[in-house]
Amino acid sequence: MIKPDMATMLAYVATDAKIEKFLLNELIMQAVACSFNSITVDGDTSTNDACVLIATGQAGVEVNAESSHFLQALIRVFKHLAQSIIRDAEGATKFVEIEVKNASTIEDAREVGYTIAHSPLVKTALFASDANWGRILAAVGRAKIDTLDVSLIDLYLGHTCLLKNGMPDSQYREELGQLEMSKEEIKITIDLNQGGSNASIWTSDLSYEYVKINAEYRN
Amino acid sequence: MIKPDMATMLAYVATDAKIEKFLLNELIMQAVACSFNSITVDGDTSTNDACVLIATGQAGVEVNAESSHFLQALIRVFKHLAQSIIRDAEGATKFVEIEVKNASTIEDAREVGYTIAHSPLVKTALFASDANWGRILAAVGRAKIDTLDVSLIDLYLGHTCLLKNGMPDSQYREELGQLEMSKEEIKITIDLNQGGSNASIWTSDLSYEYVKINAEYRN
Repeated sequence: MIKPDMATMLAYVATDAKIEKFLLNELIMQAVACSFNSITVDGDTSTNDACVLIATGQAGVEVNAESSHFLQALIRVFKHLAQSIIRDAEGATKFVEIEVKNASTIEDAREVGYTIAHSPLVKTALFASDANWGRILAAVGRAKIDTLDVSLIDLYLGHTCLLKNGMPDSQYREELGQLEMSKEEIKITIDLNQGGSNASIWTSDLSYEYVKINAEYRN
Repeated sequence: MIKPDMATMLAYVATDAKIEKFLLNELIMQAVACSFNSITVDGDTSTNDACVLIATGQAGVEVNAESSHFLQALIRVFKHLAQSIIRDAEGATKFVEIEVKNASTIEDAREVGYTIAHSPLVKTALFASDANWGRILAAVGRAKIDTLDVSLIDLYLGHTCLLKNGMPDSQYREELGQLEMSKEEIKITIDLNQGGSNASIWTSDLSYEYVKINAEYRN
């Protein structure tokens, strides 16, 4: 699904449910937002992305705006496909979820998530299994959001709390953080504690292999 | 000047000229904008940057708002210091100037320049001496500016024209581009041909050594 030179994604999803065109458009927008449009390898946008959702109506089962089951299933399929792109990313050794909680707006939550996900310092730390939370916090600090109160931030790696209200957690020891960072699947949770909007971004690390694939692809 | 973990810059510049405090503030802002605030290694902002300009007045020569010579000299000193940071960047094998010409606004010119400078695909191409102009153009295309007309864009590497009005130049052959990309100092010029604002950004490439320095700094 990833073309090493310039990632190009074509996603085709089909259902035999019967769904009005207008509703289908609504559903695909919602499902794309929290899946394909929430992943990044390196911030360099792919050139020919498309996601096509087709409903044949052959099953006879009708989905209307009230039925949330179909949307949930659709999101599950889309997320699986989108996350598979990240698992297959150029030179990736880690699969990383960045969950940003309680931002003022969804846009703020996504901006913080993407700023962390695109930080070469965070990405090299992920590659090195290095629990360098200063790099994560520095990325949060330079995210382009209007208000940020560092004294409210909680930071977790997996279930391990590193920072509580912007201060190192008293229970935290670096070995615990390093244990989380050593895993192949890493979850970074930033709780901004300043609003009610959440977003998750999925990304990969920055490895020697990433440089090799993108520098030596002609050889 | 670069601390490999988190770049931290402290610049102290002194002159014996006599300059009013208000004017000195004006001059430092202008000189910083086109020097220290126009460089980037990886987009991860340094944590403790400061630039201090001191005028002792000991020389007795008075600089007023009309004398542009002092500002020009100041900019030359600031640029030299700022560019030295890039020459000394983590793992840098190339020194790259990105000049964006004829944007609608200075902000647009800077946004285009920074988007190219931060693109991992462009940076790995620079490392590989690979004249992959598609990566440069793709970065221009995803820069967050309001209007962009691809059919107006000219692209140069050094003095070699690659694109004229958005189309490959008839004289261009890839060997010419590769020759420019093989140099240790590379100049990328993007002429947007849509306004009168120019900006230059200086940056470095993304090498194996960059990953090594930032992933293995504890070893």
